[in-house]
Order: sequence, then C-alpha cells, then structure tokens
Amino acid sequence: MTITAKNRLALLVQEDHRDFLQMRYRVSRTLYSEESDFQQIDIVDTPGFGRMLFNDGLAMISERDEFVYHEMIAHVPMFVRPETRRVLVIGGGDGGTVRELLRHASVEYVRLVEIDPKVVEGCREHIPSTSAALDDARVEVVIEDGVAYVARTEDRYDLVLVDSTDPIGPATPLFGPEFYSNVKRVLTDDGVVVSQAESPFYEPEAQSSLLKVLGGLFTRVQLYNYSNLTYPGGLWSFSFAAKGDCCPVGDFDPQRVEASGLSFRYYNAEVHRAAFVHPEFQARDLKELVTPLKRSPAR
Amino acid sequence: MTITAKNRLALLVQEDHRDFLQMRYRVSRTLYSEESDFQQIDIVDTPGFGRMLFNDGLAMISERDEFVYHEMIAHVPMFVRPETRRVLVIGGGDGGTVRELLRHASVEYVRLVEIDPKVVEGCREHIPSTSAALDDARVEVVIEDGVAYVARTEDRYDLVLVDSTDPIGPATPLFGPEFYSNVKRVLTDDGVVVSQAESPFYEPEAQSSLLKVLGGLFTRVQLYNYSNLTYPGGLWSFSFAAKGDCCPVGDFDPQRVEASGLSFRYYNAEVHRAAFVHPEFQARDLKELVTPLKRSPAR
Repeated sequence: MTITAKNRLALLVQEDHRDFLQMRYRVSRTLYSEESDFQQIDIVDTPGFGRMLFNDGLAMISERDEFVYHEMIAHVPMFVRPETRRVLVIGGGDGGTVRELLRHASVEYVRLVEIDPKVVEGCREHIPSTSAALDDARVEVVIEDGVAYVARTEDRYDLVLVDSTDPIGPATPLFGPEFYSNVKRVLTDDGVVVSQAESPFYEPEAQSSLLKVLGGLFTRVQLYNYSNLTYPGGLWSFSFAAKGDCCPVGDFDPQRVEASGLSFRYYNAEVHRAAFVHPEFQARDLKELVTPLKRSPAR
Repeated sequence: MTITAKNRLALLVQEDHRDFLQMRYRVSRTLYSEESDFQQIDIVDTPGFGRMLFNDGLAMISERDEFVYHEMIAHVPMFVRPETRRVLVIGGGDGGTVRELLRHASVEYVRLVEIDPKVVEGCREHIPSTSAALDDARVEVVIEDGVAYVARTEDRYDLVLVDSTDPIGPATPLFGPEFYSNVKRVLTDDGVVVSQAESPFYEPEAQSSLLKVLGGLFTRVQLYNYSNLTYPGGLWSFSFAAKGDCCPVGDFDPQRVEASGLSFRYYNAEVHRAAFVHPEFQARDLKELVTPLKRSPAR
C-alpha cells in the first residue's frame, strides 16, 4: 500500500491488482497501521466507503458494502441447513461473518480461528459495526493458524466458513487439499463448508483449482456468485461443498427466509437461487467442476 | 483523464469517480486522442483489458469485457420480442450493441444515431472487434443528436436501445421525459425501449429518476442487472420499458435461446431470468418504481 499526499486534502490509498489495475480510495484519516508477523494491516477512514480494512494493501472490507459479502457467506448455508448449531469460522477476524451467523437462533457456538491477532485488535478498536459480534457469549475467538487447528482438533462442526483473503501470503494453504481433507474430518456427516472462492473473471485458475480440491473430497460441490462492490471486477464467488448430498438449491425452502423474521440488505430468497446461475463463460468453465443441482422444490 | 508517466513502463490512465475513488489502468500505447465538439475521446491499449475507449475520462468499453454489456443490452429484449425487425440505437458509436443485434435473423434494419463522429471514427480505426458491425448492409450510421432525431422522425421501430454514457455532459437529455415521450412515439404499439440505467449502488438517484420518467409514459417498466467488470461497483443495470404489456420474464420463452443456435459469452436463458432478481437494498428502492412481473411460463 502506498499512501501519497499531494496536499492535506488529497491523501489516497492505492491497491494494486497484478501489474495492470490500481484502485485508489480517498482517505480522510489513518486509524491503524501495524505490521504483524503475517502482513501489513491498515485501517483508514474514507469519505466514499466509510472505514476500510486493508491486509497487505488489499481491501478486505469497507463499512459501506461489507454487508454483501457477510450476508452471502453466512445466510446461503444457514438457510439451506436450518439446524446448524456449531460453526467454525477460519479467518474473518473483522467479525462480520460471525455477526451474520449469530442472527440465526439455531446457532449455539461459533469458534473464530484467526491467525493474525492484529486483525482482531485493529477491528475491535476501529470497526465496531463488524467486530462487536466477537463479544457475544456464543463466540470463542482463538488466535491460531486455521490449518493447524483443523489438523489437531477432535471438535465437530455442522458448518465451516473459510473467510479468507486471496491465495497469496498467509492464506495460501487455505486453498489446498491437506486443509480441506481436515475440514471434511471436522464436519458432521451432513456438514457443509463454504469458502471465499475468488473472481471468475480475474482469477479463474484459483477458482477452478479450489473446486478441483473440493471435488476430490466432497459429495457435492457448487459455486455461487455475488456482486462485490469494492473487489475489482465486481463478480465474485463462494464455493459450497457438502459432506452428504445437501444441495443449496434443491434443499433450500424459500419460505424459511420469510419465517425467520430476519431482514437483510443484500440477501433474499430470490437472490439465494439466482446466485447459483452463472454467466455463460463461467458456466462453461464449471461444467466438469460442480455437481448438477437438485431441482428446487419451489420450481 | 490524466496520463502520468513515471517512466516508459508505467504509463497509466486514471478514471475519477466523484472525488473518492480512482481507477488506474496500465497503458501500453495511446492509439487515439481527440477533442470533439462534445467530449474528449481517448483510445488506449492496455495489458490488462485490451483496447479501451474513454469518453471524458470515463471507461466506456474494454475489449476484454465489452461482451457483457453488449450481450445484455441486446439479447434480453431480442429474445423477449423474437419478431423484432427494425431497431434504433441511440449512442453506441463503438458498434458493439449493433454487432449483437445483427446476430438475430429477424433484424432487417438498424439505425445507429450517434452524436459524436469522433467516437465512430476512433472505434472504426482502432476497435474493429466492435465497429466492424457498422459496415453491415442492414446498418445505417447517422451522425445526429438522438434527442433531435426522435423528435423529428416519422420512422417507426420495434425496439429502441439507449446505449448512452452517464447523465452528465452530452448524454444528460437521454435521461429526461421529453426524450422518452418521443421514444414512445417512434415505437410500434408493442415496442420496447431498453436503456443503460446506471448503478444501484453508486447512482441510485439517477436510476430511480429514470424509472420515474419511464413509469409516467410506459405500460410496463422493469429493471435488470448485470456484472460490469470495468465500471466501478460491478453491479449495473438496464431499464426495460414496454409500450404494450410485454413482460421480459413472463413473455420470455427460454427455449427460444436454444432454438436460435446462437452462442454467447455472458448471456444465457438462466442469466436472462436471474437478471430480474434484485439484491434486497435495490428491491426495496424499486418497489414503487417497477411493474410486477408476469409469471414465467417455465416456472
């Protein structure tokens, strides 16, 4: 991350994508800037997007649009598996994913395993809209490498959410087969794992590599899309893998959403189903990599 | 647009969004740079996105992702109205929208009315992948203000596509009631107009203002979304307004897409229907502004 100051009113934070695209956000104030054992962490206030968290110069969340990512990683699996009680979140130290999970009354216990204490520290201090959820009595925040935790634990979970950064730096093992064979081990028999799965336009290789790893281990593998408003390219995905045959479309009853009484800003029952529709270029890439969907009961 | 050259390998083109976001694309070569009577036009070659057209410093198209915009503006109405013979395109001097229209055998005549001769000239010289379509025998390219043309003409069209830039500069009247009352006049009784309708996240006011204008004139008004990979925010929309009661979901038969034998890179029958599903924040804003969809025959 390069902070350039042309004058006191033109402070900018710049994010580089490969060597051909840069996004620059106007900054009103730097709130937190720390180098941890794993990465550089910066939290800045911006006039356009509210407070933003950057890990190694890549935008992780902005207050303005974090609801999109966090609703889509949490509510899609939660409404497919309404009896989800124990959830493991790997990464996600900002707390946004945990916040959305806790809105479901079925959730009894969430373990957040975040490798970097400074992500949690910075967000607790400066982004309470996501991190306040970490203080809930149902949540245990553990600073540990998620890869090591799933390899050693005898705990079992109904749902695992891999809320990771890109497959560079500390998150690289979170895209590999060893990690996922341990995730499968810690899941209950009908358990599900949902993972941040990159962009089909900018990172199709990372996406198909992850799906191949999941395909070698799980009964059912799907991919769903959402519009990320601050990640480049806009079109981003989550993977959904089930140890049993739980299908995120065929086993989804849209009436559950209304019955929950919850209100959302991005997610709704129609968005849930539309998320599993892929643009043609992506659908072609996915043909060999995902499981045919079960027919939806409401269709 | 500011071109900065740190050294010979770091030429960048910078696009400003309001005063809080900038996108910068690495440039390998400037191909065309002209000031017309209406705007500054630049065509550059980039390592990340191929050739790109900028009007007044805003990215209009890139070779890498223009297929998304052009397929979605053209094929959604064309597959809803398979008997479309005469089409009027306002703006769209790059030719990409015309290229997609011409793939439909029903199309007998396309009139492209572009205000700025330099957009057509620059694209004809440097972006043949879109502009070659303008040489087709079924196409008439007319350099004229689209607002003046729809006000004066006695010609009639089955479909009007408003392929415009943002509601600033020369495109401003293309978002107003006077223009659309004339568009209604030049449409056949069951005619349809589809328009570039901005971003629900960055420009919700422009979007709702356009829908209000259309709602005052047309029987049926809808909005559909697509993922624009180079416009900021990623989530962008087109409006669909019908003089009769033609519904882009209820009157859409997905089998037409397969029967056409056409292949696409973004569009397909499922994408068509999913495009009319809106994230919850947008669905709430649209409640009073769009017409309830007719039930799809395939549902």
